[in-house]
Amino acid sequence: MTQVNDTPLSPGKRRIVILGGGFGGVYTAKYLGHLLKHRTDIEVCLVNRDNYLVFQPMLAEVVSGNIGILDTVSPISRIAPRTRLYVRTVERVDLQAKQVVLAPGIGSCPTILKYDQLVIAWGNVTDFRDSPGLHAHALPFKNLTDALRLKDRVIRVLGEAALEPDADVRRSLLTFVVGGGGFSGVEVCAEMNEFIRETAKKNFGLDPAEIRVVLVHSHDRILNREMPESLALYAQNLMRKRGVEFLLNERIVSATPEFAELGDGTRLRTKTLISSVPASPHPLVATLNLPCEHGRITTDATMRVPGHDNVWSLGDCAAVPMAKGGGSCPPTAQFAVRQAKTCAENVVAAMGGRPLKNFVFTELGKLAALGGRRAVAQLFGKINLHGFLAYVFWRAVYWAKLPGLDRKIRVAGSWLLEMLLPPDVVQTGVDRPSGLLEQYYEPGEFVFRQGEFGDRCYVIASGKAEVLFHEPGTADLSVAMLGEGDCFGATELMQATAYPASVRCAEAMRLLVVQKKEFLPLCEAMPGLQERFSAVNAKLASVGKGPIQPVEVVAAPPNLKSEI
Amino acid sequence: MTQVNDTPLSPGKRRIVILGGGFGGVYTAKYLGHLLKHRTDIEVCLVNRDNYLVFQPMLAEVVSGNIGILDTVSPISRIAPRTRLYVRTVERVDLQAKQVVLAPGIGSCPTILKYDQLVIAWGNVTDFRDSPGLHAHALPFKNLTDALRLKDRVIRVLGEAALEPDADVRRSLLTFVVGGGGFSGVEVCAEMNEFIRETAKKNFGLDPAEIRVVLVHSHDRILNREMPESLALYAQNLMRKRGVEFLLNERIVSATPEFAELGDGTRLRTKTLISSVPASPHPLVATLNLPCEHGRITTDATMRVPGHDNVWSLGDCAAVPMAKGGGSCPPTAQFAVRQAKTCAENVVAAMGGRPLKNFVFTELGKLAALGGRRAVAQLFGKINLHGFLAYVFWRAVYWAKLPGLDRKIRVAGSWLLEMLLPPDVVQTGVDRPSGLLEQYYEPGEFVFRQGEFGDRCYVIASGKAEVLFHEPGTADLSVAMLGEGDCFGATELMQATAYPASVRCAEAMRLLVVQKKEFLPLCEAMPGLQERFSAVNAKLASVGKGPIQPVEVVAAPPNLKSEI
Repeated sequence: MTQVNDTPLSPGKRRIVILGGGFGGVYTAKYLGHLLKHRTDIEVCLVNRDNYLVFQPMLAEVVSGNIGILDTVSPISRIAPRTRLYVRTVERVDLQAKQVVLAPGIGSCPTILKYDQLVIAWGNVTDFRDSPGLHAHALPFKNLTDALRLKDRVIRVLGEAALEPDADVRRSLLTFVVGGGGFSGVEVCAEMNEFIRETAKKNFGLDPAEIRVVLVHSHDRILNREMPESLALYAQNLMRKRGVEFLLNERIVSATPEFAELGDGTRLRTKTLISSVPASPHPLVATLNLPCEHGRITTDATMRVPGHDNVWSLGDCAAVPMAKGGGSCPPTAQFAVRQAKTCAENVVAAMGGRPLKNFVFTELGKLAALGGRRAVAQLFGKINLHGFLAYVFWRAVYWAKLPGLDRKIRVAGSWLLEMLLPPDVVQTGVDRPSGLLEQYYEPGEFVFRQGEFGDRCYVIASGKAEVLFHEPGTADLSVAMLGEGDCFGATELMQATAYPASVRCAEAMRLLVVQKKEFLPLCEAMPGLQERFSAVNAKLASVGKGPIQPVEVVAAPPNLKSEI
Repeated sequence: MTQVNDTPLSPGKRRIVILGGGFGGVYTAKYLGHLLKHRTDIEVCLVNRDNYLVFQPMLAEVVSGNIGILDTVSPISRIAPRTRLYVRTVERVDLQAKQVVLAPGIGSCPTILKYDQLVIAWGNVTDFRDSPGLHAHALPFKNLTDALRLKDRVIRVLGEAALEPDADVRRSLLTFVVGGGGFSGVEVCAEMNEFIRETAKKNFGLDPAEIRVVLVHSHDRILNREMPESLALYAQNLMRKRGVEFLLNERIVSATPEFAELGDGTRLRTKTLISSVPASPHPLVATLNLPCEHGRITTDATMRVPGHDNVWSLGDCAAVPMAKGGGSCPPTAQFAVRQAKTCAENVVAAMGGRPLKNFVFTELGKLAALGGRRAVAQLFGKINLHGFLAYVFWRAVYWAKLPGLDRKIRVAGSWLLEMLLPPDVVQTGVDRPSGLLEQYYEPGEFVFRQGEFGDRCYVIASGKAEVLFHEPGTADLSVAMLGEGDCFGATELMQATAYPASVRCAEAMRLLVVQKKEFLPLCEAMPGLQERFSAVNAKLASVGKGPIQPVEVVAAPPNLKSEI
């Protein structure tokens, strides 16, 4: 019986729990390890979804293939070896009971972790809440899996475009849109552009003129918050020369399976949309009822959360006051690593009843890589560098910052090979969607058309759709309206028949999509489920058009691309 | 309207379609490219699920981390640049209409590919049909994703074991079982064992004595079909010295979430089961009604399928007669590559009405790597090598066979680094199950116990389960039976309450498992769905025990591992 598994700490033993495995969390654990080297009475635990720290500044290079897949990540256990690492997700935090509840691991139950001191370093997440469809159709770019997924997607659309006879569809496949012109957006756009332009012709036989790489940014120049104007404009011109289009003073307001829509109503038809803005704090932050500024946890200069003696926060999820000039620290690795040192010292000081230190640090510099051996850099707020020199500087600085000698050697090796060898066009297969998908449609868009075939079924989560029917040679007639909770597509999926009518979005609509490989076994096991999913067919049969007979698949149905 | 997309071949133009992207298919495409270099009237198409060829002999090294993740795979477009590559799955093959129907790609409809000549090179797949539960609970080891998933799983269970206070659970986490002692099983077992033993103590602080790596094989020695007795016994003794346990003359007959069961009823409690046997041909082979031998497509010595002038088959899915000694060619890359050359020549000859050649080839040698710089090798059926020399030979041979200079340079670099650096313990995150899962249970096993918490709901696809209830301090009482189509777990998932009763398998049972993250949005969108999934709760309420009230989650429920 796996009922109770008590592993109480010995009496007098205390525990520090760190939430989050970014620079803030991992380096706090590392410094605590040093400070508490001879203290067996204090245990340090770190909870993170992955067992590695992502070295964000180099993540974009995974896309271009300049460095190996694992070169950007370091095992947390190697950086902070004295820490107990829980590779789990956090279910909830109970500040009153001083405990964190973790989701179950492999073959184990949920775990309760009691703490004496709590350090919150969750970082931020890509926030899609205000832009309908972005959650469903935009790729985030935060961790290793995101980078691999983006690379997979790029290779996949290039491969599809190489086979696609329809010029319109091909153009949509060959349009790549990046939302956000901060560090992350600019770097991923530059590296992706480089990879696409290097491989499109050589590996896929595509015409480079058909390729569009578009960066959408809400200001009149990129890097407006991060870099001085001269460097930002240098970056912008360089990227433009290399084929990147800039849509400035604009933002992406929504996305569907077919396009990204801008604030002025422009629709960019694309199959590859990357969103690097806006970043918002981890959703669990809001559940804690801690004082916040713009969603970031307020702390004093010691990184302690006001009103909570044993709760600390740092990194991108915290608003730590700047020593000079007011405001709070920018959400960069540079600050997180320095905050971690002070935070670790303060936590230990607080546990020993000693006075705390204030966080003091002035930014050393800012760097952005632009692909193709070019970069921009600002040092000590004064010296501006750009071009090849800045690129060498970029590499030198980040290489020196890479945690661990083995990582340094690996990255140096990869950079050497990258100079000699062509980029890789191998898909790792992480971009294969499985499970329940979500799709967002704007009014007027078709989910599918009469006569087409599909291998999925749909549930309307919100919004409305119109069912359209036409006799051969006549115009579409609206025959029914569908709303929340209505399902369609199941009958055609089960019988492998063509859709007897079209479905077109009437009011902005969120669809849940169940794929064939999931739906078939469920239907087989659960009598009645298929009927529930076929409710719309009954509805269609009951409206004026009478029972619309599904069409049998014969040889080459009209919407199959027949290559004869 | 995306209705018809006709891209007919010009009159007089012909098409060769190759199905499968293993050595057989890709090398046939490569040789056809050479032979048809100046023929614009013949198009060669290759259809494969991935855009790369896996270099199988080195796949096991991905697990130990001796080579980089992408070192074992080569883009098909680089090996066979004159081929149109369809990265798609095949829906069906119509030999009468001479066409292949491909599943839709990203943003496109299904595609019909008409052919003049068809080459079937699907290889084989891991066959789990005769062993209940293996499909659900055993990891296959065929392609890159399999290798990455296995490495992820190993790192995950080591990480969990490091945190696990219960010695029984820890032992189950630290038991690794490999089914099958052929080349693939032996190599993956050796490399996995090396990786586990190298990292368990250093990276996870685990006691090596708690680790079991078990190889189960159906013969009285491993490699019995592949290697002479002396070499096989050398391999077996070496691996035993390094901590591998052998269970010989045994096979795995079933698997559940908790254990692998052998023919004699022995149950090995494990969370990591790898199956490398038995291999069976691609499931689509059976749909073609072609003549078969043990599931492999029968061909004549020219690789043509009897009775079909324009259908050819080679590689692991074909039974190509051996030139000497009778029988058919063994399913190895060595044969597939040579068959590809003859097959390509024969296809071109047949299209030109010229006579065909018979396939003649004698095996050059056999090699198996054993990890830790040791291998066994047999050359020309005569010379036997083992130990370090054989290992150097293994590396030299396979390095020379790697397709492409860039791959050779990368692998050489990785091998160099591997000598200098410790193995990586980074998870790539491919072992995160999503979508509908399947689980298999043997009679007597518990799905969950009264008082536990869960985040999934269950549908019985086949078999029976018993619902058990007990008052505090009393024994379990059987209160209801569940059968096919019954669902349970939904109410507790929705309300985050403990299970009011236990569910125990009564008759070997296949369960479909829907996870919380998929179930919640579906229930929200589809009124009535939750009730359908909660049918068992109603059933429970109606039996003798009266309505069993779900228990509220308070602070630390009994089955949470409370670490205080």
